[in-house]
Amino acid sequence: MKKKKKVNAAILIIGNEILSGRTQDKNISFISNWLNLNCGITVMEVRIIPDVEKTIVKNIRNLSKNFNYVFTTGGIGPTHDDITAQSVAKAFKVKYGYHKEAYKILEHYYGEKKFNDGRKKMAKMPVTAKLIYNPSSAAPGFITKNVFSLPGVPSILNSMIENCKKYLIKGLKVHSKTINLFTVESNISLQLASIQKKYKRFVDIGSYPFFRLGKIGVSVVSRSSSKNKLTSVQKDLMKVVKSKKIKILSI
Amino acid sequence: MKKKKKVNAAILIIGNEILSGRTQDKNISFISNWLNLNCGITVMEVRIIPDVEKTIVKNIRNLSKNFNYVFTTGGIGPTHDDITAQSVAKAFKVKYGYHKEAYKILEHYYGEKKFNDGRKKMAKMPVTAKLIYNPSSAAPGFITKNVFSLPGVPSILNSMIENCKKYLIKGLKVHSKTINLFTVESNISLQLASIQKKYKRFVDIGSYPFFRLGKIGVSVVSRSSSKNKLTSVQKDLMKVVKSKKIKILSI
Repeated sequence: MKKKKKVNAAILIIGNEILSGRTQDKNISFISNWLNLNCGITVMEVRIIPDVEKTIVKNIRNLSKNFNYVFTTGGIGPTHDDITAQSVAKAFKVKYGYHKEAYKILEHYYGEKKFNDGRKKMAKMPVTAKLIYNPSSAAPGFITKNVFSLPGVPSILNSMIENCKKYLIKGLKVHSKTINLFTVESNISLQLASIQKKYKRFVDIGSYPFFRLGKIGVSVVSRSSSKNKLTSVQKDLMKVVKSKKIKILSI
Repeated sequence: MKKKKKVNAAILIIGNEILSGRTQDKNISFISNWLNLNCGITVMEVRIIPDVEKTIVKNIRNLSKNFNYVFTTGGIGPTHDDITAQSVAKAFKVKYGYHKEAYKILEHYYGEKKFNDGRKKMAKMPVTAKLIYNPSSAAPGFITKNVFSLPGVPSILNSMIENCKKYLIKGLKVHSKTINLFTVESNISLQLASIQKKYKRFVDIGSYPFFRLGKIGVSVVSRSSSKNKLTSVQKDLMKVVKSKKIKILSI
């Protein structure tokens, strides 16, 4: 069996509505979780940018060069502010126009009479793109080089993501374990640092304060591609918890 | 009266927990809304990056150069994975160490006995930084050049943001108007494009599909620093709504 390697991705959220604070993004955590769980791909950077062509082009080029995959969301609908497809084409200097298969899919879905100019726009994209089929509302996403372009509406995006899977090289899955403790971070910070040092390069240990049941607590999250290393870290953490007599909320 | 100019900002979210999808970010929309409403500052880019020093340094330098202000969130607590302060210092080549005033604030808050090494770490930052006072949990944020560093916990960040105001140059506020219509985007896409063309440079018109009360709808959001121009756009939009006999959900 070929040993799996680390595979990474970036997410590019395209849309004034997210940037202005009007809309709360829901796609980042969905895509990131899905990629890790299903494909062993780790998201290493997210950018949110406005509906401005030169900004989209610049970011597509930059992220495409620096990461194995790029997932864009938003800007592939029928209105004037949907400019992702033309921007991707420009970024890679490929022809932008009607995609034959996408055109057929949409024409069939709407019927010839209702297939107006707005709807036809959704068949325009890099003409050589591979399609990401859309079981919710027909209009497909598309793959150009290592860039996967998906819609911004979370329910539609969620229904399409499985169709990306066959195009992705699978990497090392990152597993995680969480202990939720009733303590403050500064009570365990030296111990966490020393455990992190011991497992350097193999495990990432994160510490996140929370407020629950009227009490302050800390979630200690360990992440690693090795389950054995995670188990060892958990054992070391439990020693600290016992020696400091810290109450556990959940493991 | 001096005429206000456009002032922009970027947000840099620092934290593996957001990137991995474990935690849903709440700070982006809060900061973006607050900046526009209170200071007339428009957020033009958001990046989410991991707790990796060289990545933080690179992004701080890049965003600080390209935007009027940068707001970082996360990584200023007491644990080993909190490396924002040292990274900001490195990015600007300024001295990192105990900040005298921050040290005093924290020593007073915890009392000399409970002021342990973990807590002392929160007084370490660029030594010449201006402080952003923290009414919730004492540990201050800090300002280095045009970079404002805030904590990641939303309730604490929210309580501190007003203390940034006096350090910010106020810009042109962007106003917005929304019409929620029961229609599909492709039914109005040509008309929206033509209105957008008419008010090019003055108004940004965005179109966002929604699903409510079991029906499909479209939110048309117009954004501009000119209230008059917004009113004109609304009039033009209402003409389209009437001529197409579209039902309005809300204005």
